[in-house]
Amino acid sequence: MEVPQHFEDYRVGDVRQSGGRTITEADIVIHAGHSGDFFPHHMDAEFCRGQPFGQRLAHGTMTFAIGIGLTATQINPHAMTYGYERLRFPNPVFAGDTLRTRITIGRKADDPKRLGYGQVVEICETTNQDAKTVMYCEHILLVKKEGTP
Amino acid sequence: MEVPQHFEDYRVGDVRQSGGRTITEADIVIHAGHSGDFFPHHMDAEFCRGQPFGQRLAHGTMTFAIGIGLTATQINPHAMTYGYERLRFPNPVFAGDTLRTRITIGRKADDPKRLGYGQVVEICETTNQDAKTVMYCEHILLVKKEGTP
Amino acid sequence: MEVPQHFEDYRVGDVRQSGGRTITEADIVIHAGHSGDFFPHHMDAEFCRGQPFGQRLAHGTMTFAIGIGLTATQINPHAMTYGYERLRFPNPVFAGDTLRTRITIGRKADDPKRLGYGQVVEICETTNQDAKTVMYCEHILLVKKEGTP
Amino acid sequence: MEVPQHFEDYRVGDVRQSGGRTITEADIVIHAGHSGDFFPHHMDAEFCRGQPFGQRLAHGTMTFAIGIGLTATQINPHAMTYGYERLRFPNPVFAGDTLRTRITIGRKADDPKRLGYGQVVEICETTNQDAKTVMYCEHILLVKKEGTP
Amino acid sequence: MEVPQHFEDYRVGDVRQSGGRTITEADIVIHAGHSGDFFPHHMDAEFCRGQPFGQRLAHGTMTFAIGIGLTATQINPHAMTYGYERLRFPNPVFAGDTLRTRITIGRKADDPKRLGYGQVVEICETTNQDAKTVMYCEHILLVKKEGTP
Amino acid sequence: MEVPQHFEDYRVGDVRQSGGRTITEADIVIHAGHSGDFFPHHMDAEFCRGQPFGQRLAHGTMTFAIGIGLTATQINPHAMTYGYERLRFPNPVFAGDTLRTRITIGRKADDPKRLGYGQVVEICETTNQDAKTVMYCEHILLVKKEGTP
Repeated sequence: MEVPQHFEDYRVGDVRQSGGRTITEADIVIHAGHSGDFFPHHMDAEFCRGQPFGQRLAHGTMTFAIGIGLTATQINPHAMTYGYERLRFPNPVFAGDTLRTRITIGRKADDPKRLGYGQVVEICETTNQDAKTVMYCEHILLVKKEGTP
Repeated sequence: MEVPQHFEDYRVGDVRQSGGRTITEADIVIHAGHSGDFFPHHMDAEFCRGQPFGQRLAHGTMTFAIGIGLTATQINPHAMTYGYERLRFPNPVFAGDTLRTRITIGRKADDPKRLGYGQVVEICETTNQDAKTVMYCEHILLVKKEGTP
Repeated sequence: MEVPQHFEDYRVGDVRQSGGRTITEADIVIHAGHSGDFFPHHMDAEFCRGQPFGQRLAHGTMTFAIGIGLTATQINPHAMTYGYERLRFPNPVFAGDTLRTRITIGRKADDPKRLGYGQVVEICETTNQDAKTVMYCEHILLVKKEGTP
Repeated sequence: MEVPQHFEDYRVGDVRQSGGRTITEADIVIHAGHSGDFFPHHMDAEFCRGQPFGQRLAHGTMTFAIGIGLTATQINPHAMTYGYERLRFPNPVFAGDTLRTRITIGRKADDPKRLGYGQVVEICETTNQDAKTVMYCEHILLVKKEGTP
Repeated sequence: MEVPQHFEDYRVGDVRQSGGRTITEADIVIHAGHSGDFFPHHMDAEFCRGQPFGQRLAHGTMTFAIGIGLTATQINPHAMTYGYERLRFPNPVFAGDTLRTRITIGRKADDPKRLGYGQVVEICETTNQDAKTVMYCEHILLVKKEGTP
Repeated sequence: MEVPQHFEDYRVGDVRQSGGRTITEADIVIHAGHSGDFFPHHMDAEFCRGQPFGQRLAHGTMTFAIGIGLTATQINPHAMTYGYERLRFPNPVFAGDTLRTRITIGRKADDPKRLGYGQVVEICETTNQDAKTVMYCEHILLVKKEGTP
């Protein structure tokens, strides 16, 4: 759904909460095949039995892709991604975990180089069913100011 | 393939180059379905015709997942991912582009909190067939020092 | 396998039974990604725990696609799909259920507009391992009469 | 996104338009594998060259699943699917076509059996980039009336 | 479709021809992800430009899986696979090629160890749209003789 | 990773061991969809309950594709596949099994027709977590001799 917002419309502290999604063994298999990462931590249950978590882990790149994908329900035509900072995976994701992502507007600033644009930082936190954070990152958006063509 | 390396074994400036992989329309469709991100920039050729690039773009989360996945050919049992910094997508990825990733050891430092561990920063640059950078990030590894159990 | 049949060859009351297929969690994940429908009834185990069925449900569109797909073992070159009527999902489908589809020739009639063609209505009933109907629809075929080129 | 609506909130004639999605050869391959329908009309380019359309066609079940899936952006917790009527595929879908779905509230009526519920009929029309209808159906919803627990 | 056949029912020289299937770029991507084989001959268009065939090749394991899969339209409950001999890939398969498989009953013999069983050898030849053989193998079946329980 | 080896570099008796991979229900579903083989031995849990193994079996073509795929970690630019002999599946593969493949250089010989090339036979054995062999085959490579351009 399109939700047009100019730089001026973002308010620091505003929060948006995604729906939930249960990660499945199928997701891990599909992500391995899609990314080409077949490391035993994700794919080899026998190997994992001897590791601290005792079972296969979701790929960090998948937790990022799905965690961010959960928020892809509203499009702002005035914004584009500049990049991501401080991407972390504080807790592991296992098949059966249910994830949801909370976006908080963290800070705003004029863009140092692009006249007519500002930077908006969305704090993205993906949590599991136990409210543990499994992915954290700061999504930097370039957003048009009002009146910028 | 397992390639054990302690913190002391990493040398700043060392470079590792991945193989190449051609991104296909199928990858974009698979990633949309996997991430749940069906934004028109990735999925709607009609919409894209009216946009600056004129065609569908790969998702940033996919460029990251495949760009990093290309390097998943050697495993260091003494290292684990701490996180990623400065993730950027300086140029777009289209179906038909061929990507490869170069990892350069960028810097090393003692870990401030974990005795017996150091941080190694891998500079990851994914380029297309025209040598344009399509993904840049800094992958921070926690690596055991020699003698750490 | 090609099984040519003209309008005259269909007999009301004839029955054809498909093989069986067990629906998996992977099918639900694949269908969500294929259709773009990530509603929590299909994808969010935590949400579903608080719902009447207590677990994730297969999408109706998937039960239809697989229920009809189960019958795609014989092709009649003289027939084409006109449409479907009365598509219903009387009982839910869960991961682990095994489905099969029974086709009964329900009725026949001259096509009101197309000379040389008749309409054949196939009653399609997909049942689970407990013989409960999970999908019902009436598949209307346009079938050439003998002698129609 | 949740958009709660009681039976009384639906207004005949209201229209909702989905975003667009370009159907790809990958979608046809994925749907064949998901549904198990490998009929030559969908899978065999050589066979199709000798057929009226000259190329592979999307499965009707896929056009239905994706056409309906395009509308899965808002959830009404007071509504559930009762069934579909008059499902038709008036024009073929080819790889490369871009589809979007328009939902029009077609009619409303008290449910004949369920006190406290009404039936709302959504007319679903999926069109391609040439504004030709490729899927038509009537989606019957059971919707709670205000005050129904 | 079940087609019960005892050892005595197979006749040397009998031929069965499968339907056709066009191999797509999506199939190659899916097979790489499924098998874990991302060799540049299959995945890297730039690399392949400098190779004799000038383009990406289907994996041999995929040509085998799809070539044999094309024949999976009739099941003999009295037969089981013993193994395959002389698996060869005389010509390459590219995206866009249309394959079909011809099975010829090549020879029959009593099973040397299993009383009541015989071996039937199916010669499997998968050809492309130019009638070139892209896969050849001999499928050895163990088949019950009449009267074997 | 590229590991160039001429015919002279292969030593009979040398062994290479792959990493492990756990086969999942998702793999069986994906392989059925990829190969088109939906036989009840792989897809119908109800049917399988009445069969000797009591549960769904992986396709032989999948065990072959994944068993060989597990070894696709090093590429020899001087070698190409000639074919496979004696492909056998001595024990079944179930969802949950963890496979790994051992390659042993079995024998070497001059190629009878191609001057400057030799044949190297790799004995491929895929085993499960109980060390039972689930796939055996002999992979025949054509390998350049030193000095062959």
